[in-house]
Amino acid sequence: MSAPKKVVLAYSGGLDTSIILKWLQTEYGCEVVTFTADLGQGEELEPARKKAELLGIKPENIFIEDIREEFVRDFVFPMFRANAVYEGLYLLGTSIARPLISKRLVEIAEATGADAVSHGATGKGNDQVRFELSAYALNPDIKVIAPWREWDLSSRTKLLEFAEANQIPIAKDKRGEAPFSVDANLLHTSSEGKVLEDPAEMAPDYVYQRTVNPEDAPDTPEFIEITFEKGDAVAINGKALSPATILTQLNEYGRKHGIGRLDFVENRFVGMKSRGIYETPGGDILLEAHRGIEQITLDSGAGHLKDSIMPRYAELIYNGFWYSPEREMLQALIDKSQEHVSGTVKLKLYKGSAKTVGRWSDHSLYSEAHVTFEEDAGAYDQKDAAGFIQLNALRLKLLASRNKRIKG
Amino acid sequence: MSAPKKVVLAYSGGLDTSIILKWLQTEYGCEVVTFTADLGQGEELEPARKKAELLGIKPENIFIEDIREEFVRDFVFPMFRANAVYEGLYLLGTSIARPLISKRLVEIAEATGADAVSHGATGKGNDQVRFELSAYALNPDIKVIAPWREWDLSSRTKLLEFAEANQIPIAKDKRGEAPFSVDANLLHTSSEGKVLEDPAEMAPDYVYQRTVNPEDAPDTPEFIEITFEKGDAVAINGKALSPATILTQLNEYGRKHGIGRLDFVENRFVGMKSRGIYETPGGDILLEAHRGIEQITLDSGAGHLKDSIMPRYAELIYNGFWYSPEREMLQALIDKSQEHVSGTVKLKLYKGSAKTVGRWSDHSLYSEAHVTFEEDAGAYDQKDAAGFIQLNALRLKLLASRNKRIKG
Amino acid sequence: MSAPKKVVLAYSGGLDTSIILKWLQTEYGCEVVTFTADLGQGEELEPARKKAELLGIKPENIFIEDIREEFVRDFVFPMFRANAVYEGLYLLGTSIARPLISKRLVEIAEATGADAVSHGATGKGNDQVRFELSAYALNPDIKVIAPWREWDLSSRTKLLEFAEANQIPIAKDKRGEAPFSVDANLLHTSSEGKVLEDPAEMAPDYVYQRTVNPEDAPDTPEFIEITFEKGDAVAINGKALSPATILTQLNEYGRKHGIGRLDFVENRFVGMKSRGIYETPGGDILLEAHRGIEQITLDSGAGHLKDSIMPRYAELIYNGFWYSPEREMLQALIDKSQEHVSGTVKLKLYKGSAKTVGRWSDHSLYSEAHVTFEEDAGAYDQKDAAGFIQLNALRLKLLASRNKRIKG
Amino acid sequence: MSAPKKVVLAYSGGLDTSIILKWLQTEYGCEVVTFTADLGQGEELEPARKKAELLGIKPENIFIEDIREEFVRDFVFPMFRANAVYEGLYLLGTSIARPLISKRLVEIAEATGADAVSHGATGKGNDQVRFELSAYALNPDIKVIAPWREWDLSSRTKLLEFAEANQIPIAKDKRGEAPFSVDANLLHTSSEGKVLEDPAEMAPDYVYQRTVNPEDAPDTPEFIEITFEKGDAVAINGKALSPATILTQLNEYGRKHGIGRLDFVENRFVGMKSRGIYETPGGDILLEAHRGIEQITLDSGAGHLKDSIMPRYAELIYNGFWYSPEREMLQALIDKSQEHVSGTVKLKLYKGSAKTVGRWSDHSLYSEAHVTFEEDAGAYDQKDAAGFIQLNALRLKLLASRNKRIKG
Repeated sequence: MSAPKKVVLAYSGGLDTSIILKWLQTEYGCEVVTFTADLGQGEELEPARKKAELLGIKPENIFIEDIREEFVRDFVFPMFRANAVYEGLYLLGTSIARPLISKRLVEIAEATGADAVSHGATGKGNDQVRFELSAYALNPDIKVIAPWREWDLSSRTKLLEFAEANQIPIAKDKRGEAPFSVDANLLHTSSEGKVLEDPAEMAPDYVYQRTVNPEDAPDTPEFIEITFEKGDAVAINGKALSPATILTQLNEYGRKHGIGRLDFVENRFVGMKSRGIYETPGGDILLEAHRGIEQITLDSGAGHLKDSIMPRYAELIYNGFWYSPEREMLQALIDKSQEHVSGTVKLKLYKGSAKTVGRWSDHSLYSEAHVTFEEDAGAYDQKDAAGFIQLNALRLKLLASRNKRIKG
Repeated sequence: MSAPKKVVLAYSGGLDTSIILKWLQTEYGCEVVTFTADLGQGEELEPARKKAELLGIKPENIFIEDIREEFVRDFVFPMFRANAVYEGLYLLGTSIARPLISKRLVEIAEATGADAVSHGATGKGNDQVRFELSAYALNPDIKVIAPWREWDLSSRTKLLEFAEANQIPIAKDKRGEAPFSVDANLLHTSSEGKVLEDPAEMAPDYVYQRTVNPEDAPDTPEFIEITFEKGDAVAINGKALSPATILTQLNEYGRKHGIGRLDFVENRFVGMKSRGIYETPGGDILLEAHRGIEQITLDSGAGHLKDSIMPRYAELIYNGFWYSPEREMLQALIDKSQEHVSGTVKLKLYKGSAKTVGRWSDHSLYSEAHVTFEEDAGAYDQKDAAGFIQLNALRLKLLASRNKRIKG
Repeated sequence: MSAPKKVVLAYSGGLDTSIILKWLQTEYGCEVVTFTADLGQGEELEPARKKAELLGIKPENIFIEDIREEFVRDFVFPMFRANAVYEGLYLLGTSIARPLISKRLVEIAEATGADAVSHGATGKGNDQVRFELSAYALNPDIKVIAPWREWDLSSRTKLLEFAEANQIPIAKDKRGEAPFSVDANLLHTSSEGKVLEDPAEMAPDYVYQRTVNPEDAPDTPEFIEITFEKGDAVAINGKALSPATILTQLNEYGRKHGIGRLDFVENRFVGMKSRGIYETPGGDILLEAHRGIEQITLDSGAGHLKDSIMPRYAELIYNGFWYSPEREMLQALIDKSQEHVSGTVKLKLYKGSAKTVGRWSDHSLYSEAHVTFEEDAGAYDQKDAAGFIQLNALRLKLLASRNKRIKG
Repeated sequence: MSAPKKVVLAYSGGLDTSIILKWLQTEYGCEVVTFTADLGQGEELEPARKKAELLGIKPENIFIEDIREEFVRDFVFPMFRANAVYEGLYLLGTSIARPLISKRLVEIAEATGADAVSHGATGKGNDQVRFELSAYALNPDIKVIAPWREWDLSSRTKLLEFAEANQIPIAKDKRGEAPFSVDANLLHTSSEGKVLEDPAEMAPDYVYQRTVNPEDAPDTPEFIEITFEKGDAVAINGKALSPATILTQLNEYGRKHGIGRLDFVENRFVGMKSRGIYETPGGDILLEAHRGIEQITLDSGAGHLKDSIMPRYAELIYNGFWYSPEREMLQALIDKSQEHVSGTVKLKLYKGSAKTVGRWSDHSLYSEAHVTFEEDAGAYDQKDAAGFIQLNALRLKLLASRNKRIKG
């Protein structure tokens, strides 16, 4: 790889990415463009602008954007149409944000004439893969710089020395090492490392930042209604809201009732297991509600096919292949299934759980006339079941006869 | 089908199967053998013996058996090795009991010289399919009589008239119609029909019979530890227990903490949707724990393959194909994966939820040396990630170049 | 089912469907509309019109249509985009024609005010299922009459008696029984039954009607080029042709070179095995060519996903679920993959085989720069492979260490 | 990686691996053990011994073994039970040999106290991955040396210079560069590179080494019978033979009739496409025969499940994951299906094709009584099909009604 001339950095304004910024300037002598995004992580963005300016970035090279609506509309919602969970339980909160960040990095590179992008993910995790595969898929000629894999600042001490030597301000609480590492966006907060590294040990209470402890949640349940159109949530309690606003409100419901906590050991794409604490307050509610509305609007053929490809779809997102033909093919399949996934779900929120307790829809496939225990109105002839069973049994009978014959 | 001469009836001792018993005697003039099983449904079996005698069944033709251990060991546990859930949420509590009942019906038929078996499932449900496919798979020459598909006693009034005309005792509370229909065994209780037929309406509280309302559960969490060997639970809090005893104890934990309630609309194999209320107190805990122990003992290749075939496996059980070559092939695959699924999971039980909070095992694949945020001890070279990403990205780059070329 | 008043019959003009026509008139006393389609089966259609008139059908109730282009464009080609084969070998020639016939039957019923449709498929085969599932999926209120499952004319003798009694002309060669049964359309000819019923016995030569014996094919190979656009064949040897014309020409190439013969035992959806002789001369060539063009235009992620869902897709078509949400979902996935499947394939046709010997495309993903044995021009860094292998190996190493530890 | 002390080299005796041998000695100063295997590649092994001795290898460090029986019995046959083909067409002839070579390398390392193994695969291909993943899976502590990724002898000129400088004898025909590269074993011969690098160009005739040109094959077909037991071929024309002998004989049949040629562009695991010419004479016959016997001995549930997982199984073998838990899980599934895959297939071999023309078995599931066109003997009641279709149609009708309601 030839040396980069101008690089767009995913910049949070925090200590680590400030060090990267300076390191890029000194190591590669290249011009740096910063990109700071509001993905709903709950931090002010303007301080990042000031810090970037302080570190010598020209105003026209500082990009600060609120991309929450795009995040939910074009990434979170398509993923939730699939009921995607990784390894049975994880809602992919970190994974789904990475491709959008890469997309903006590449777009800003193209707009500013930069030939490289850079990120602050380490060489042990999945995020480096997600950032880089997305970048290469969007621009095959882009260079990607991953300082954590390149530099020799791999200890806390060395990092702080570098910061001091380069006049990078260090907040007081950053002198000591954080007891764990955090990633957050509108969909979730993940915590991992340090005090969480022994999967046998319960996570300490202070790790949870996004939800109350279920024990501290209200003692009475709360009921809400979520309305869907073509697989996407469009209203809460009858009030139409934008995608990001819906997720924000569901997060508040989830936070209050202690919903969405997950203590999880997962398989990273790079080959090792890791343990994380995830909080996905709104996401847990949304997943339950989406399943609830699919129960009455999706037929079994469509639903079972979706279920069977879901693990592969989730794995692709987890591994960083959002911008791959196979993810797009699966998305086409999933989206096709959602044409009639419209209607309303009623949920009970209580002490850590969101549960569907009712659902209705103009698009419902549920037929009381067919299922009723009451005397038939002729919708269904029970005698048909005899033929249905006979033909389903035929091959089993032929097998049993064969096996008996062979043994006999 | 030629007329049966001797038929083994799955006999609960209740009104409906007593009517069937008498109807078989009068309609087909055939000798009836009764089979009454303790599957953990929580009913006394001896009254069934007395009723059968009263209805003229010879003592040697009355079979009453406790098959709880076989049920859990050979059916429930193998299914839980797969983390099987139907349509995302249903633990298959009814489905998994049917093949065992059919197996005993067929075995008793062979032992008593009967040429037919009979059951009390209606023509609208899945259970008829499960009973009959199992029976035919085990004995291709057996006859199956499904009175509900044959007779004209399809209204409550006609049934009661038939009972009275045939001196079948009718318990007082059976005169009126039950507000919903129930099936129960050691794994679960299901309720459906009547008051539950509108899926928009919340299920009334009195439907739940097996678990306390989460609101009435203890205000403080309880922690338990479940130990697994090769994928099966073998001990609770360090105490080794038989399969059925483990499930019984987990049921008691679940009941107390309001765990395992599910309000669900599902797709029946016979083609329509139906709404059920399921309670699986011990099963919910067991599923969570099994996932917990797999997190550290199963590698990603094994786990992802299991996840991808699980929906098909669950569908087979739901549809009644327990005794099919494809279920047995999938079981071979699943069982192969469980060789090292041994260790202990710590769970928090609280107000409707069971959550893994810790897990440990001699068979653990989790390597703190590889995942640690601390400075590397050399277990993992972060630079390897660069090559890993480059080769994973190669095809995406080639795609992006091609697409750019075509457009350009 | 209430009695039908007006029925649209899939009418070939042959003896069997003429008997059905008359039976519908006499048994149900209902008005009959005939639909005779040219699907490329190689028979004149006008005789069917005369026969229908002779049997009392009103001119406005006789529908005769050439639907070959629609057949190939909307059914055969979409299926070939998937490289669909049933049970490893069968190109689904009969299966794919049924939904189109049902579609026209239902449309004609709606246009003529008929409330029923009827077909001549027996109660043992797959075609009844395909006709009827398609009809019900397109019009849930349509009635379907399947005379072979209803009447008592199940022997040849009775059929001929009925024909004579009803003044239905019987061609001389129809007096005796045919030595096997045939279905044909532009895609294939299938032969089954009678002389073919023992799968151990070689099919007699006279069964093959659509292809020369490879032994009699030309002694020198012939080379042709097929051009594709977005997954569909659009030209042969550089000459643009309509879908049906392309298939017609490929059939002629295949016939001449003895290509597309298959002696096959398959699993019917209704539960038993059957043996058929299939001839798909053009289809075999088309499948080989489509695979050839995909080899250079489809990336591995897309291709492997397609391969993994193909068996399910083929099964759906075989079982009659063309008009199901899951087939449409899979089609969306497949079609999405074909956006760049454009280019040309060169094939060698010789004595029963069609083999790709060259392929090229503006959309090619093949990169000589990457794969070359020559010294690298820098497109690929072999050292990347070391990291790629290390991370792919990591979990295998952790497994091996764990297993050694447990044993040790 | 610390420096290796003793290394086991996969040694062919050819120029390239002789250079590697010497390079290992000089570069790492380590003791070298050579392993030369007869996998059926058709070369004398004793010259390799002499060459190794000449290069200074101690007699006790020279391992020469005939592993053809193990290769066919434990690798080729298990794979053929799955009907494995990669990307629709490739029989995995190279892929399946690599894990066995690695297994022996690791075993010999353990026996001789070596701490490393080495191979001659380049950094661009799949073989490096297959060798190394297998080695690491079998011994997590083994070192692997891949000289082609390490050294700077990447041009032909440099290689020859190194050989000359180190007194490595160079055969005359090795002075110039070969026009393509070859790999061979008992299952197949592959050719790639150089003259084959343009996938638009037909492969020249001289590339084919293992089969006659179909045009030169006999003008009359030959018929053979292959007998299977539990999925494996055990006899040809009634004569019981060992696994390697069977494959050897089938290779001779295939060679003579020009069977098993494939011109193919495939997706390598390392990310690029490559073009190869494969010759698998015996393998093509064996695959056709195995499918033929499965047609009558495997039921549809088992067969369709096998078909659906086959692409994943083939991909695992292609990518080098033979020794992975998921390959072993799939093998357990596949082997379970083969319990009754016993019987005999008759094949016609002619001018490039092997085609099943008859098959019979004591384990057959084919039932003439069920499928016959003759009047029923009561094995099958055609009226059952009506109920079967009604219940399969139910969800499609409910869908159609819903869609009509929404539109209307």
